[in-house]
Amino acid sequence: MKIAQVSPLYESCPPRLYGGTERIVYYLTEELIRLGHEVTLFASGDSQTSAVLEAPCAQALRLGEARKDPLIYHITMLHRLRRRAAEFDIIHFHTEYLHFPLFADYADKTLTTLHGRLDLPDLPVIMREFSMMPLVSISDAQQTPLCWANWIGKVLHGLPRDLHRLGSGDGGYLAFLGRIAPEKGPDRAIAIARRAGVPLQIAAKVDPVDRDYFEHAIAPLLQDPLIEFIGEIGENEKGGFLGDAVALLFPIDWPEPFGLVLIEALATGTPVIAFGRGSVPEIIEDGLTGFIVDDVAAAVAAVPWAKQLDRGAIRRRFEERFTADRMARDYLALYWRVLGDGSHADEPKLFRAAGGLTHAAD
Amino acid sequence: MKIAQVSPLYESCPPRLYGGTERIVYYLTEELIRLGHEVTLFASGDSQTSAVLEAPCAQALRLGEARKDPLIYHITMLHRLRRRAAEFDIIHFHTEYLHFPLFADYADKTLTTLHGRLDLPDLPVIMREFSMMPLVSISDAQQTPLCWANWIGKVLHGLPRDLHRLGSGDGGYLAFLGRIAPEKGPDRAIAIARRAGVPLQIAAKVDPVDRDYFEHAIAPLLQDPLIEFIGEIGENEKGGFLGDAVALLFPIDWPEPFGLVLIEALATGTPVIAFGRGSVPEIIEDGLTGFIVDDVAAAVAAVPWAKQLDRGAIRRRFEERFTADRMARDYLALYWRVLGDGSHADEPKLFRAAGGLTHAAD
Repeated sequence: MKIAQVSPLYESCPPRLYGGTERIVYYLTEELIRLGHEVTLFASGDSQTSAVLEAPCAQALRLGEARKDPLIYHITMLHRLRRRAAEFDIIHFHTEYLHFPLFADYADKTLTTLHGRLDLPDLPVIMREFSMMPLVSISDAQQTPLCWANWIGKVLHGLPRDLHRLGSGDGGYLAFLGRIAPEKGPDRAIAIARRAGVPLQIAAKVDPVDRDYFEHAIAPLLQDPLIEFIGEIGENEKGGFLGDAVALLFPIDWPEPFGLVLIEALATGTPVIAFGRGSVPEIIEDGLTGFIVDDVAAAVAAVPWAKQLDRGAIRRRFEERFTADRMARDYLALYWRVLGDGSHADEPKLFRAAGGLTHAAD
Repeated sequence: MKIAQVSPLYESCPPRLYGGTERIVYYLTEELIRLGHEVTLFASGDSQTSAVLEAPCAQALRLGEARKDPLIYHITMLHRLRRRAAEFDIIHFHTEYLHFPLFADYADKTLTTLHGRLDLPDLPVIMREFSMMPLVSISDAQQTPLCWANWIGKVLHGLPRDLHRLGSGDGGYLAFLGRIAPEKGPDRAIAIARRAGVPLQIAAKVDPVDRDYFEHAIAPLLQDPLIEFIGEIGENEKGGFLGDAVALLFPIDWPEPFGLVLIEALATGTPVIAFGRGSVPEIIEDGLTGFIVDDVAAAVAAVPWAKQLDRGAIRRRFEERFTADRMARDYLALYWRVLGDGSHADEPKLFRAAGGLTHAAD
């Protein structure tokens, strides 16, 4: 199949810095090529890819000067793709809604993965206007605020099978990995570790917008000798950091659309103790790959149990459910669904306009 | 002619608050209708217009809650217009470059007025990509940073002939009207008034972004009994405020693309003492409708001379050069130029791609 993958331009594919969307686009592109498809990747010029690369800018926008106008480069990219739309069998967008008006006439050969949170107040306006555009979510939970929109399915993220390997879990510490932000619950992670009496290592970046929160809410908690803040770590350090941990703590306080770190932990055989918001119940299997809890006390109680879980079994569940290969095959099935059902662009639109619900049985 | 006018949605047409672009779109629309044309206005739902109004949102975006996503409403508007593009003879955009990819195929029945400054670093990227889109500037000076772009002309702004009437100039004060911002030179205005020994009245709003500048650079200068800060004034107070003034001070420190207040002053017969940046030499006629100066000393020297200028003659120059009627006729001439020259969309594109310069002899 001739496939166009359309990435945001904020980070390269894969990202040099934090950037979940561009990382998933990179993995998906590589897998589709491995499965024999012909892929053109629309992404920033510093991307690494086996696909044909079409770049409207030399460098990822977040790396360049702050004055760069993202809209200009995204519009340029979409315009160039539009000119070549006939060349592709399917066009897979990861660019939120910006491409909707330009590709409304091509809706039945496109698919749009929404990577972000969907409870923003203006999103219903644009999803109603462009109800012909087939949408894919990255979890069932993510669809909730827009459950009436034109979903043709969900595809859980996946990682290359060999990106991480089974770790020993012998480091004797709990792990927190990601961003320091209130919705990620680093304060709860610290409370859990202290009450469990187990060391916590926090590998996290602090965005400028969260600097205040870090200094006032988190920094004072770092005095405890049990708590170690090691800052942001690189992609190649993650496997070791997660694999040596007793468990990953994921005490979120928001409806996380996916949470890549969850499956990174599973890939190393490390169980996850997670609060059950958003995508968590779809990813973590309670008592098998971790524990889903409601509060700090339950998380503390889960720590000794986490040590008892079979790390080999956790890794096997990763291999069964969260590889990039599975993700690519899921997307291919949706590509065929979009293409195969010629009536799709009209029929579900009318149905959905009437307020109907259609969840793919994915 | 069937004309679509496409306004930004930040303010209504006309704006309830500050908003030069939406105000010009409003005047232009009214005049085109008066001249017998059929106009559909794409603008916010709280606009007042004699045209058929097509509104993607009930209220101007700047008035609503801060969380409104402007992109969503502008994209929705452009999509709806695109669906109806065949209905119009000409589509006149005032929405910067956002519509470019969606209307590239209709370039030869569109015209885009650029209202802002054009010395931003990424603009050449998009202007090169969309070199088929016919552009109009609001002054010759505005074109300078993108002089190679696809300009088909310039149209100086205009105001309804009867919006303001000839004032007496008897208020005994110099006037400063607009925003408190470094590039507008309120500090220079104060220096000019003090050295001239003439009272200055400052009618200006302070945007949140300029609050610091106001408090540190301007507020301390307001102690002088000669200087009076009267805050933001309404549209209906402007005529009296300007008409009673000895002269308007316009001591700008940036390449102003137009400067509506200049022609508001001329409409009341009030001369302007202006620094010669940007559009100023195209609007002010030195020694007839005001004085163009290079520094504070020259501005001070001009104050007594400004009192000698013939206010009736200034008002006549306004009527000859800056009415909305003239503006509408200028635009109509450009509409015909775009439509009349069927080869326009192709030929100049090739020519311009080769780096050629074409300035309309407007």
